[in-house]
Amino acid sequence: MTRIADLLFEVRMLKDLNRTGYAFLGAGEESIAEHCFSTAFLCFVMARLEPGVDAEKLISMALVHDAAEARTGDLNYVHKQYNTVDEPHAVSDLIHGLEWAKNISELIEEFNQGETREAQLANDADQLSLMLELKKLKDLGATSPESWLPFVVDRLRTDTGKQLAREILGTRWDEWWTRGYSE
Amino acid sequence: MTRIADLLFEVRMLKDLNRTGYAFLGAGEESIAEHCFSTAFLCFVMARLEPGVDAEKLISMALVHDAAEARTGDLNYVHKQYNTVDEPHAVSDLIHGLEWAKNISELIEEFNQGETREAQLANDADQLSLMLELKKLKDLGATSPESWLPFVVDRLRTDTGKQLAREILGTRWDEWWTRGYSE
Amino acid sequence: MTRIADLLFEVRMLKDLNRTGYAFLGAGEESIAEHCFSTAFLCFVMARLEPGVDAEKLISMALVHDAAEARTGDLNYVHKQYNTVDEPHAVSDLIHGLEWAKNISELIEEFNQGETREAQLANDADQLSLMLELKKLKDLGATSPESWLPFVVDRLRTDTGKQLAREILGTRWDEWWTRGYSE
Amino acid sequence: MTRIADLLFEVRMLKDLNRTGYAFLGAGEESIAEHCFSTAFLCFVMARLEPGVDAEKLISMALVHDAAEARTGDLNYVHKQYNTVDEPHAVSDLIHGLEWAKNISELIEEFNQGETREAQLANDADQLSLMLELKKLKDLGATSPESWLPFVVDRLRTDTGKQLAREILGTRWDEWWTRGYSE
Amino acid sequence: MTRIADLLFEVRMLKDLNRTGYAFLGAGEESIAEHCFSTAFLCFVMARLEPGVDAEKLISMALVHDAAEARTGDLNYVHKQYNTVDEPHAVSDLIHGLEWAKNISELIEEFNQGETREAQLANDADQLSLMLELKKLKDLGATSPESWLPFVVDRLRTDTGKQLAREILGTRWDEWWTRGYSE
Amino acid sequence: MTRIADLLFEVRMLKDLNRTGYAFLGAGEESIAEHCFSTAFLCFVMARLEPGVDAEKLISMALVHDAAEARTGDLNYVHKQYNTVDEPHAVSDLIHGLEWAKNISELIEEFNQGETREAQLANDADQLSLMLELKKLKDLGATSPESWLPFVVDRLRTDTGKQLAREILGTRWDEWWTRGYSE
Repeated sequence: MTRIADLLFEVRMLKDLNRTGYAFLGAGEESIAEHCFSTAFLCFVMARLEPGVDAEKLISMALVHDAAEARTGDLNYVHKQYNTVDEPHAVSDLIHGLEWAKNISELIEEFNQGETREAQLANDADQLSLMLELKKLKDLGATSPESWLPFVVDRLRTDTGKQLAREILGTRWDEWWTRGYSE
Repeated sequence: MTRIADLLFEVRMLKDLNRTGYAFLGAGEESIAEHCFSTAFLCFVMARLEPGVDAEKLISMALVHDAAEARTGDLNYVHKQYNTVDEPHAVSDLIHGLEWAKNISELIEEFNQGETREAQLANDADQLSLMLELKKLKDLGATSPESWLPFVVDRLRTDTGKQLAREILGTRWDEWWTRGYSE
Repeated sequence: MTRIADLLFEVRMLKDLNRTGYAFLGAGEESIAEHCFSTAFLCFVMARLEPGVDAEKLISMALVHDAAEARTGDLNYVHKQYNTVDEPHAVSDLIHGLEWAKNISELIEEFNQGETREAQLANDADQLSLMLELKKLKDLGATSPESWLPFVVDRLRTDTGKQLAREILGTRWDEWWTRGYSE
Repeated sequence: MTRIADLLFEVRMLKDLNRTGYAFLGAGEESIAEHCFSTAFLCFVMARLEPGVDAEKLISMALVHDAAEARTGDLNYVHKQYNTVDEPHAVSDLIHGLEWAKNISELIEEFNQGETREAQLANDADQLSLMLELKKLKDLGATSPESWLPFVVDRLRTDTGKQLAREILGTRWDEWWTRGYSE
Repeated sequence: MTRIADLLFEVRMLKDLNRTGYAFLGAGEESIAEHCFSTAFLCFVMARLEPGVDAEKLISMALVHDAAEARTGDLNYVHKQYNTVDEPHAVSDLIHGLEWAKNISELIEEFNQGETREAQLANDADQLSLMLELKKLKDLGATSPESWLPFVVDRLRTDTGKQLAREILGTRWDEWWTRGYSE
Repeated sequence: MTRIADLLFEVRMLKDLNRTGYAFLGAGEESIAEHCFSTAFLCFVMARLEPGVDAEKLISMALVHDAAEARTGDLNYVHKQYNTVDEPHAVSDLIHGLEWAKNISELIEEFNQGETREAQLANDADQLSLMLELKKLKDLGATSPESWLPFVVDRLRTDTGKQLAREILGTRWDEWWTRGYSE
């Protein structure tokens, strides 16, 4: 097992890098790692709502979909207008020398293609992960999430994703513990 | 799909709660969500190193193993000496009303039992996730990781986990990009 | 004087640990030490408003009422539903070997019993300390303090505490310097 | 009770203002409120080590000794070379209109004079509070505390203060929980 | 070139010191260095809007106008009521032993006098720099900027400054990239 | 003056975006705005050491050299291996519609070409700005700056830059105020 520690240290960098979109939103903060956790958990949930999907692939795809960002950086919407990212090269360097890791490259490729059911759900999870943050900030009084949310909703492609979105937008971020609170 | 947004908002709280051990370490910082991401990725890697394991269960277990901590809090070693945590009750409330989510409870139970191969690997991943942080901090000059690392190593139970530990401890945290750096 | 440095280093940990309720509030931040300072100052004020109380005991009680939290952690409302805290054991370990420190244990015990005038005032100060933070955040536009405040008000037991609450809720957090501001 | 909420809101500002010395130290961070808590707790301990002192006055003095800093700011050693602070004026405005609060002014005056036993102990506590932070940072590998500590030690005037200093400097910051740690 | 590194290290301290006004505003954060950058860029712009001014002097003045604050600290409105700052002494020590640096002293003096066209524009830039932050925070939902803005507007003295203010107040902070955003 | 507020709000974004290299260094933090301030001040100093240069151009160049990074993002060494940045397009959009702002584009172009004396000095200032941060962190005990510094030194092209580097590396970051400190 050579270079495997390099892979582990490279992927842990995602904890040290923040998603740059929040600077433009003007509220909130989230590391790439936190975003990936959230996306993977959403996929875990989706796998239970759609028993026919390949759960392992769906969750794994969510887990690794931004794995190359330690090398490429997290580029937000504006940054993407001015940068051409060579993600395949980054992924190739990420897994270099680790024969079993070719799977990471395949999962990222499938995610980017967005054609399979798993890829569509994972892409929706990617958006729903952001939606949860926007809803929380909106509930707390921040003004910018209001204008960002419609765009996020519009990006959803699956019925499962859209249904989850309706549920999220119709629930306060702290209801899970405030509902029925009394002293 | 009722209460599902509650579940999603509850689990996203893991991004807002820091692991309390770092205050005692005196260096570094990590949210529970970041730790879970790291643990899940380690399990993704382990699943490729041990093709015989149930990859979906292993990765899912890592993903949800601390899911109850939004309700229980993250208690470090010292805190645990003075608190009795009713995790089953927290898990029960976490999944209440979501019939498909019983799986979360089973995964957490299996993780805590630590008997199956998947549970042993996931528990090792839990430790290796911390080890990656300690190694990084140690490489950067912090003095406390040195005394914590032996305890972390001793908790490992699987050969895969122990081998990964040797690799991690023998690699600098930034080697993945500094190796062969030149201008 | 043995173990006394241990006690001092243990209590200074309260600066490194944040009160977890703010993560659930979604706004603000405060260390346990800051909370204790605020509570103690409120008691200093209360001692002047009620000359008949034992000022030394009142202020000291506020100072040490959360001293065990370096060991137990700061558990918010939700965390408390799932944890049983053995505070007496934590306090016992805190003061172990320091004969003069038995007073800390007695003060915490009296505070928790909430029966004496001093204990009732100190408990109200504990709430008013939070109220000051909620009022500040509410004045700044955060939406969540609004729903938390009525519960805090309801917990007050003394007339002094209730009167201070009315004053706090009727004053803007920055009035002390903005009142009469001109250029 | 008029203007009392103003006083409470003014003093809570000490949580929002950091002690500027740490920027010059290059490590650590502490709000004025945290420092005052620490100083007051040290005085609580000193009162038990020297039963003859006026405990209420000693602890109260520590609690309010920096109360004027919301108005004056926290000026570190360098800043003080270039600023003349009118603390009496700030204290006067702090307590304006609150007849019972004249005590705050007296306590600050006595602290600054440094003549009474209580004032000497409180001034030593002020230094020991910083010493605890420097010792922690030194134990963690920071290089600057080493050069600051001798100056802090030299400022101590009481035997009690000097003895506490010896204890602090001879104890690791995390010994209170690491001593005897095993798994 | 002796003492020149001292000067460079002293001025870089402005990155480590925050402007204290934001603690009183209750929102936002900015280092002195960030403020100086912003002020200098505004002067760069003003120099293009008023071709007759001495651009080098204007921009340089903005760059160094707070250079003495590593020594004096950044005192906000309230702090200034209770402190007498000896800025000339601080500036003298800043440039001590560097014959070519007398220019820094002259620029700061001219800025403080506020008589020349460059000084008036630089002083307006100083205010507009704050205005940009207040407008951003106001757009994001913070309530306090609303009451601060009129005072900032009133301090402007030049037509160029007032025109820039009108433009700033009539533009959303994120319009530069949200204008015409579509997917 | 249309779109001018857009330009001002766009450039102020540099305060909200951190330089990503520090995540890879593992120590320190700096916004792009802080870096630009530092670079501009270094150029102010260089202009006095080399009276023959066009001071206005030199300082302005430093001020705007990263102005496009609100749009492109700050890409560190690793990120640059996987991204192709279209800076001219970003600069063009930055100044769009502002006839007088063509100067910004020219300055950035000249800086990137690195041919004129001013451009060479500004590029050295860009490196010296980082060097000051690395030296501070190294003095404080961080281990990674040691390996980064040689690369930074090697990038310097001018005698003035190299002389300043020698001075910086031979001076402790806090000497400017600790030199001759006594009580």
